[in-house]
Amino acid sequence: MVPNGWDVAREAGVSQTTVSRTLRGDPLVASATREHVLDVARRLGYTPNTAARTLITNRTNTVAVVVPDISHPLYPEETATIHAELSAAGYRMMLFSQGLGDSGPQDLEALRGNTVDGIVFAAATVDSPAVAEFLGNGMPLVLLNRDVDHVDVDRVLADDRAACDRVAQYLVDLGHRRIALISGRPDTSAGRDRTEFFGQALDRLGCPLDPELVRSGHLSHARGYTAAEELLDRDPAPTAVLCTSDIVAYGVLDAANRRGVRVPDDLSVLGFDDLTMSGWSMIGLTTVHQPLDEMARAAVRTLLDRIEHGADHVCQRKIFDVELVERRTAGPTPD
Amino acid sequence: MVPNGWDVAREAGVSQTTVSRTLRGDPLVASATREHVLDVARRLGYTPNTAARTLITNRTNTVAVVVPDISHPLYPEETATIHAELSAAGYRMMLFSQGLGDSGPQDLEALRGNTVDGIVFAAATVDSPAVAEFLGNGMPLVLLNRDVDHVDVDRVLADDRAACDRVAQYLVDLGHRRIALISGRPDTSAGRDRTEFFGQALDRLGCPLDPELVRSGHLSHARGYTAAEELLDRDPAPTAVLCTSDIVAYGVLDAANRRGVRVPDDLSVLGFDDLTMSGWSMIGLTTVHQPLDEMARAAVRTLLDRIEHGADHVCQRKIFDVELVERRTAGPTPD
Repeated sequence: MVPNGWDVAREAGVSQTTVSRTLRGDPLVASATREHVLDVARRLGYTPNTAARTLITNRTNTVAVVVPDISHPLYPEETATIHAELSAAGYRMMLFSQGLGDSGPQDLEALRGNTVDGIVFAAATVDSPAVAEFLGNGMPLVLLNRDVDHVDVDRVLADDRAACDRVAQYLVDLGHRRIALISGRPDTSAGRDRTEFFGQALDRLGCPLDPELVRSGHLSHARGYTAAEELLDRDPAPTAVLCTSDIVAYGVLDAANRRGVRVPDDLSVLGFDDLTMSGWSMIGLTTVHQPLDEMARAAVRTLLDRIEHGADHVCQRKIFDVELVERRTAGPTPD
Repeated sequence: MVPNGWDVAREAGVSQTTVSRTLRGDPLVASATREHVLDVARRLGYTPNTAARTLITNRTNTVAVVVPDISHPLYPEETATIHAELSAAGYRMMLFSQGLGDSGPQDLEALRGNTVDGIVFAAATVDSPAVAEFLGNGMPLVLLNRDVDHVDVDRVLADDRAACDRVAQYLVDLGHRRIALISGRPDTSAGRDRTEFFGQALDRLGCPLDPELVRSGHLSHARGYTAAEELLDRDPAPTAVLCTSDIVAYGVLDAANRRGVRVPDDLSVLGFDDLTMSGWSMIGLTTVHQPLDEMARAAVRTLLDRIEHGADHVCQRKIFDVELVERRTAGPTPD
C-alpha cells in the first residue's frame, strides 16, 4: 500500500492541511513542524502526490489527446508529434482512443474533472456535444483534423476544398469519367465535407459524381476492402476511386490485388493523408499530402497559448494547404 | 476558470473537508449542510474533481500503459486491445510513449505520485531502474513484450526461444546458409534474447551465424532499410534475413525493391510480430505470429488481479506460444 497524505498526517499528529502546506513549501509552517512532517514523509516512503499537487496548484501539466481510433495509423503518427511537442513544453500527454464500442463516453467522463489542463480533440463529429460541454466548462480545447459546426473554438484543419478540387481536376485530366468515392462517416466534417467538395468539383468539370459509386463509413482497411469489392462488381466498374483516408486506399489496393485488377492500368486508386507508409515501395500510393506534423505542432501551440494566456483572445482557425503526391497507383483511364 | 473545491468551500462558508465529505456522500454531514454545499456546487458549476476523488478513495481507476514508441505499429495494435479490455473493466487508460528523446524520464516522473492504480509496462530494458522503483513503491506493474532481469514481477511474453528455433530450422531446410539477422537493441530482452537464441539454433543446425551479418538497434522501417543496404552491399550477400520485428522487415523489403533485389527469389525476408498489415497482399510477409491480442488481454487481466487482490500472491510468468506464418517473402535459396 503506497502511503498517502492522510497517513503522513496521522503519523505526524498534524492535520492534512498542515501536510499539504508543508509539501508545497508554505513559509507560514513553523520550521520545527516542517522538519517533523518531512521526516515522517521520508520515513513512510511518501511520494509527493500528483493529486494533492493538483488540488494545490489547480494545474496538472497534463494535456489530453482524444483520437477516434488509435489503430488507424494516422493517429500514432500525429500522436508521436504531439507528444514530442508537449514534452518539449513540459507537459505530459494522456491519450484517449475512443474506439468503436461504448468506451468513449465513459473515458471522456474522466476529463470532466480537473484531470487535465486542456484537450487536443481529434475525434469530433459535426455536432459533438462533448466539445460544447468542455468549452462551456472553461476547458481549453483545440480541434484537430475534424471540425464542429456552430461552435467558436480554436481549430487546425486541412484545406479539404482545395484537396478535392485538385484530385477532381487530376482524374478528369487523366480521362477518368467513372469515378468512385469512398468517404468517411457523414457525421464527421471530413467525411461530409470531402464528399460535398469532391462532388461539387466534379460537377464543375462536367463529370457529376454518380451516387451509385459513393460509399461512406468508418475509415479502415476492412471498410476499403469491402467497398472496393462492391464497386468492382459493378458493370461497368469505376476506373478510378478516391479514398478520403490512406488506410481505406490500402484496403482497396488489397482487394484489387486479390481480384487480379491491375493498379493503375485497370483502376486508379488515390488516398488522402500521405501516411509514412504510403511512400513505401510496396505501396507507392498516389495521395493528398496533409502536413500532419505541422498540423499537430500547430494544434499543441494553439492549445498551450489558450491554457497559458486564458480564454479572452479570439479563436484561431488554421487551415493548412495540401498537395497531390503522385506515386504509382494512378494513371490514365483504360477506356 | 473552472471552480474547484476551495471555491465551493469559500462560497458556502464551510471547510474544504466538509465539501469533500459532502461530495463523497459521508452520512455524518448534516443534511442541511449537505443541501447547502450541493446547492453552492451546482450554482458555481462545480464538476466533481477527479483529483479530490483520488485523495478520498486513493484509487484513480486509471491504468498507465508505457510503450517505447507509439509510432511503431506494434503498439497501436496492442494499445487498442488493452484499451478495450480496460474499458470493459471500468478503467481508463493513460498512454505514455517514451519516444526516442529525453521525454521518457520526465513523463514517468508523473507516475511516481498516485496518478494511476497500475502500469502495463511494454518499454522495459533488461535493467530498467524504473521497473524496480515502481515495484519498490508498491505500484502494481506487469511487463509486456519485454522482460527485466533479476526482478520478481508479473510478465507476459512470447516464447522467443521456440520462435528462433522454428525460423532457423525453416531457413536451413530451404537451403539457406548465408543468413543475416537484424535484431533489436541489446539492452532489451527481445533484442538480446532473440539474437542469442537464433545464434544457438543455427549453431545446433551446423550453420553458425556470421557476426558480420548481424545488425542490432532501434526497431524501425528506417533501421531495416539502412541495415539491408549494408547487408546487400556485401559480396557474397546474404540469401535470407530474419528481422526481429515486422516494421524492420518492411524496411528491408523496401530497400530490396528499390535495388531490384527480388524477394524471395534473391532474398528471403522474415519478420517477427505478425502485425495486421503483414497480411495485406501488397506486403505478404512471412513472419513469426505472436498472439498480440491474447497477450495484451492477459497483461490487463494479470494487472487488474494484482490491483484488486493485492501484492501477496506469487508473481505470474505467462509465456505465449508463437507460430511461423508462411506468406510470400521467403523461399528456397537461390544458390
